[in-house]
Amino acid sequence: MNTTPSATLALACDLIARESITPADAGCQQLMAERLAACGFRVEPMRFGEVDNLWARRGSEGPVLCFAGHTDVVPTGAEAQWSSPPFHPTVRDGMLYGRGAADMKGSLAAMVVAVERFVSEHPDHRGSIAFLITSDEEGPATDGTVKVVQTLIERNEKVDWCLVGEPSSTDLVGDTVKNGRRGSLNARLLIRGLQGHVAYPHLARNPIHLAAPALAELAAEVWDQGNAFFPPTSFQISNIHSGTGATNVVPGELEALINFRFSTESTVEGLQERVRSLLDRHGLDYELEWNLSGLPFLTEPGDLLDGVRAAIREVTGRETRPSTSGGTSDGRFIATMGTQVVELGPVNATIHQVDEHVSVADLETLTDIYHATLRWLLT
Amino acid sequence: MNTTPSATLALACDLIARESITPADAGCQQLMAERLAACGFRVEPMRFGEVDNLWARRGSEGPVLCFAGHTDVVPTGAEAQWSSPPFHPTVRDGMLYGRGAADMKGSLAAMVVAVERFVSEHPDHRGSIAFLITSDEEGPATDGTVKVVQTLIERNEKVDWCLVGEPSSTDLVGDTVKNGRRGSLNARLLIRGLQGHVAYPHLARNPIHLAAPALAELAAEVWDQGNAFFPPTSFQISNIHSGTGATNVVPGELEALINFRFSTESTVEGLQERVRSLLDRHGLDYELEWNLSGLPFLTEPGDLLDGVRAAIREVTGRETRPSTSGGTSDGRFIATMGTQVVELGPVNATIHQVDEHVSVADLETLTDIYHATLRWLLT
Ligand SMILES: [Zn+2]
Ligand SMILES: [Zn+2]
Repeated sequence: MNTTPSATLALACDLIARESITPADAGCQQLMAERLAACGFRVEPMRFGEVDNLWARRGSEGPVLCFAGHTDVVPTGAEAQWSSPPFHPTVRDGMLYGRGAADMKGSLAAMVVAVERFVSEHPDHRGSIAFLITSDEEGPATDGTVKVVQTLIERNEKVDWCLVGEPSSTDLVGDTVKNGRRGSLNARLLIRGLQGHVAYPHLARNPIHLAAPALAELAAEVWDQGNAFFPPTSFQISNIHSGTGATNVVPGELEALINFRFSTESTVEGLQERVRSLLDRHGLDYELEWNLSGLPFLTEPGDLLDGVRAAIREVTGRETRPSTSGGTSDGRFIATMGTQVVELGPVNATIHQVDEHVSVADLETLTDIYHATLRWLLT
Repeated sequence: MNTTPSATLALACDLIARESITPADAGCQQLMAERLAACGFRVEPMRFGEVDNLWARRGSEGPVLCFAGHTDVVPTGAEAQWSSPPFHPTVRDGMLYGRGAADMKGSLAAMVVAVERFVSEHPDHRGSIAFLITSDEEGPATDGTVKVVQTLIERNEKVDWCLVGEPSSTDLVGDTVKNGRRGSLNARLLIRGLQGHVAYPHLARNPIHLAAPALAELAAEVWDQGNAFFPPTSFQISNIHSGTGATNVVPGELEALINFRFSTESTVEGLQERVRSLLDRHGLDYELEWNLSGLPFLTEPGDLLDGVRAAIREVTGRETRPSTSGGTSDGRFIATMGTQVVELGPVNATIHQVDEHVSVADLETLTDIYHATLRWLLT
């Protein structure tokens, strides 16, 4: 056993020490770029608006295996509740504590170290290795990955496979990878009534009374059954507001925010049409403002998923479980290039929380898995 | 025809000029008390908390005919929108403009002038005449009529008949009187779910989804059919709120404010029990905080209603229409003494609005009606 801090742990600490609260990068990408340039990458900073992004590539041929991730982190929450300061990386009982340890500076360090090792062993690997790093994943995500992807599409630069370092694991590193994500579709629903006095209900039309049966039906609706890769589409009303505050006034309108997390069995247009026809059937006077926050994507079994499975099996002895559950990630933007996308990173139990941490041993395992994936795909 | 301003118009103007925004009395009761004392009333100011009230009585025998009303007015709203300043009484095109002109300083003036005229004609009338005046009708109504009534009950002072000067008329003065009012029962309903993330709905319980079918059923429920005197009990949800503002969070609870306007066919306990059993049937985890704002009251045909009908017929030739519709009034407190209560006042079309006004001719007619009622009942 090695008693000096490993290269992955050392780099993870250097990254955590930089206070890159979204959308700040705080020099993380510069640090990564120097390491990558030193082993033969052409590095290309891409700044859009206030957001630092990094594109780096080693090799000019296909296939291209790209590592993707973000240097920004979510705010610390109540700093006083942290056992050690969130931007002072600290190892206790085999765990590395710090904001971004699990989401996702540990993964970024593991990627860089795995690539360094692989390149020194295989300087003439086939294809290309790339990095697509943003500092706008935890924020609005408008000047980050989506803009880099646009640039790549415009110059016709193809990415075959993409490994996103998001913390995909549940209990043990590598137990779960995400091979897709559901789509997310939001709407603001405004239902109009007619304001009046509660003592004269015949002169008013109460939008709460009008809306209730329709909302009950929307909540009970089965939108699809999902499929082999996706759970069924789910619908949630996240907010509902109506009323003037007065107890004797029938309000004039009701506002609700609704969200679909949808599988590839449903389409945006199909869901919109079904909502409209249900509201129409209830005779409601309404407005809908739709906002598509992400299309679903799916990486079906193929080279990338096979390589990742084999690498995880080789390093850990585990059979990984591909999953499409959970929230959205930047994988949805990368998948629009026709790229196979798999998310693979550490255990996500403490992300976005006080005392976020990652197992130091898991960082080594993750480095080994990324390294093995490079061997499976590029040698 | 008389071309000098009538006594009623002059007194109405004097009252309107006093800025008695609820709960202020601004000297209105003092003015009335002086006039009443001058024609033989024993006047008794009753101050409770911040609220001025006036009890005045002429005579010591029964039956007692009491005039009731309030000197406080609602705020002016946007003063700039008034055609003339709200506390500068102004006559234009036969209409008296000013805050309180219709609700109810015009009625107070008509009562005082009608009583003065009646007393000068019938100094030895039978029974007693009384005034019960508060300045807390438009506000919380906790230190006003309800406290005066308590005092009268405690000292066993009986009131047989009460004429409340609330603006009861719809198109023509006297076309409608209120011989009762529905009860008003409020509740705050809290429905508990379990907060979570919209991407993991199986770990959350959405209180909006849970509530919607129950609220739909409450809104569709028939509570009673009303009766010869009351329209059916009506139910309104006046406010509903749930949600953190975020589009990706399933909220933990939902709050709604509900109101019943109920007829004498329903009881408070009966309505509460039906709401609870409906919510229980839906398996909801909820809290209900009830607040009874007024029991229903009803004055069935009898001496007072007969006298009022006859007086209106004599003065205007109209058959009045007894009604129990509309909001609550202080009549509900007076009725608890076993008193027959009828509300009779001017046209209510502009009350609580900018440019509140009352017809000058209607003030004379109203004075004549009150005068005729005194004759029907006390001679
Ligand atoms: Zn992340
Ligand atoms: Zn009033």
